[in-house]
Amino acid sequence: MTAEATLRRAWADLAPIGRAPDGAGYHRFAWTGEDHLLREWFVSQAAERGLDLVTDRAGNQWAWWGDPDDQPGIVAGSHLDSVPGGGAFDGPLGVVSAFAALDVLRARGVRPSRPFGVACFADEEGARFGVACAGSRLLTGALAPDRARGLRDAEGTTMADALRAAGRDPQALGPDREALARVGAFVELHVEQGRGLVHAGQPVGVGRLIWPHGRWRVELRGEANHAGTTPLDDRRDPMLDLATFVQHVRATATEAGALATVGKVRVDPNGVNAIPSRVTAWLDVRAQDEARVRTVLASLADWAPSEESWTSATWLDADLADDVRAALGTVGLDAPTLGTGAGHDAGILAAAGVPTAMLFVRNPTGVSHAPAEHAEEADCLRGIEALAATLEHLLTRA
Amino acid sequence: MTAEATLRRAWADLAPIGRAPDGAGYHRFAWTGEDHLLREWFVSQAAERGLDLVTDRAGNQWAWWGDPDDQPGIVAGSHLDSVPGGGAFDGPLGVVSAFAALDVLRARGVRPSRPFGVACFADEEGARFGVACAGSRLLTGALAPDRARGLRDAEGTTMADALRAAGRDPQALGPDREALARVGAFVELHVEQGRGLVHAGQPVGVGRLIWPHGRWRVELRGEANHAGTTPLDDRRDPMLDLATFVQHVRATATEAGALATVGKVRVDPNGVNAIPSRVTAWLDVRAQDEARVRTVLASLADWAPSEESWTSATWLDADLADDVRAALGTVGLDAPTLGTGAGHDAGILAAAGVPTAMLFVRNPTGVSHAPAEHAEEADCLRGIEALAATLEHLLTRA
Repeated sequence: MTAEATLRRAWADLAPIGRAPDGAGYHRFAWTGEDHLLREWFVSQAAERGLDLVTDRAGNQWAWWGDPDDQPGIVAGSHLDSVPGGGAFDGPLGVVSAFAALDVLRARGVRPSRPFGVACFADEEGARFGVACAGSRLLTGALAPDRARGLRDAEGTTMADALRAAGRDPQALGPDREALARVGAFVELHVEQGRGLVHAGQPVGVGRLIWPHGRWRVELRGEANHAGTTPLDDRRDPMLDLATFVQHVRATATEAGALATVGKVRVDPNGVNAIPSRVTAWLDVRAQDEARVRTVLASLADWAPSEESWTSATWLDADLADDVRAALGTVGLDAPTLGTGAGHDAGILAAAGVPTAMLFVRNPTGVSHAPAEHAEEADCLRGIEALAATLEHLLTRA
Repeated sequence: MTAEATLRRAWADLAPIGRAPDGAGYHRFAWTGEDHLLREWFVSQAAERGLDLVTDRAGNQWAWWGDPDDQPGIVAGSHLDSVPGGGAFDGPLGVVSAFAALDVLRARGVRPSRPFGVACFADEEGARFGVACAGSRLLTGALAPDRARGLRDAEGTTMADALRAAGRDPQALGPDREALARVGAFVELHVEQGRGLVHAGQPVGVGRLIWPHGRWRVELRGEANHAGTTPLDDRRDPMLDLATFVQHVRATATEAGALATVGKVRVDPNGVNAIPSRVTAWLDVRAQDEARVRTVLASLADWAPSEESWTSATWLDADLADDVRAALGTVGLDAPTLGTGAGHDAGILAAAGVPTAMLFVRNPTGVSHAPAEHAEEADCLRGIEALAATLEHLLTRA
């Protein structure tokens, strides 16, 4: 199958899964019915190509060509889950491109000297249980299985119960050294989440730095009371604290040159005629270096933010990046180097010592995590070409 | 049964229904399983006392002693539903007191010359479908049945579907002139939502004015995007608009001498790592006169608030209030007159031309719509005594 045919068929297969009824974005959360359909799709793609399917202890899926227990392989892939109302490309483009690149290599008659794997990481967005890259973190041991099992979604369901409902044994969760040892190098292709490639006038870029980033929770406590009878002066209304907090976050982030976002809020009890007893706000902070993130956090000390996740700055493998750039040159690509404020499974694997590279495909809107996220088909095909060249280089060298 | 015994037994019956697992407040929303248990309790109380149960077209329950189709009766009552995390007294105290007052009158051998009814209004708080006093508004025609049927709860369930699930025919919803014509006068006893009686040193007060109040919805639109990759200057983040809105509401309300509250907020998509595409805020505004409410609203014109409900100022019946005060004098109560910022079914009935009175029972905390809402048993018993005296006066005069 040509890369174009693989790409078009995959988009047609995936388009209906978890799509909002009004067409505005995708809702594909870990261990839901939609996730199950996505995982089944991955299994069917592996089966069609005669690949060996392995699901590791963290629930990540691997499709192997050749036996990675003989010698570690080269792996490409990404994830299929989404944020609420997410776009079609963040995640799926990397998985689809890995299958398409394999099809290209086979059509070209490439005979690899090492195994090749396609990976689909579970629960990358953390949209349901609040921890991003949960699948790769569990795999490498960066997320403790006990903590993972106890994470709760908005309905109060624990990850353990969600796994059980999905037919998986939550006790099996945990670091999987065997699965990790099979990965000699990992290449993740991803839609760009920004307009760096638009400005550079290039369809494909090479990742270098994943910014440090973290998530914090802030509890703003007030006193529940009747909205129609409590004098303004007698109120302790945490909605006013939220207003101050949101403005303070923005001002401090601007000053520190960081990105900070309050994207999630819970109001209790959330009644029109009730002064809230509590507002919970979630804060996401990232920057090109850790000092800037810490500056923002320090300025928020009065609100006692509680850390939900933290990922240090991750430099992807320099030698591998050189290999990637050389391979890209053979197909006429002069790919610029990009840093990214988004977290990726590639970063988690890199932090665990796996040589890791990232390829980015141009996004004309620059928008991500929203329906406007986009990549032109021609650019996706250039991305697949770049990935195939990279894989051929890595799979065939002595 | 003594008033004390009736009161204690009723609290014991009602305490477990819809109580939060941590004991912090009640969740009793219209046409849910909890609501069904509350309605069953009302039926059992009517049956024990040999009263005739009538459910009107709006779903309100009436328990009659004597035949109100012969001549209109005197009715006492309130509602049993709650706001999210509400207190135990707002609503139930009025229904329980009406049954207890009836027991007192019977024990005393009072022979009424007119029928007496206990009323339990459906969906007073509007916690589920957003329209307060839905039961009494439907009864009087102030809420159109088509609009009511189409109202949706947070899960997207319409009131029509909720009624069907509760075993009721949504097509039966509508104004019920017959049921309304049976009400010669209505007396609602209610826990005070404020500390007016604490300051006055009195256990019981008489209502006079229900403040004008309304609810509005404001849509703050932004642009969904990735929290880790979108430069601060490129964002259209509606959470910042929410902050400005909340502060503006408070400042304008303070200046105008009104009460204004943003107690309910919905964030879309509400993901930790997503800039929201939209924040929806609900606004509650009340004041002792309509001009103050309109001043607040006028200052918010830029946000284009959309009205969800509006209730004009309601003066309760002056002659009836005189009767009530005279009756209270016979039991040694010197009850002060109170205005209230809270809406009540009494106000809806008054607006429909029913002579209506309200009695308030002292609330030591002043807190309402929250677990701290309270009334001492001794004060509740004084309230029942006041209600019984009022009813005896109204039921036995020529």
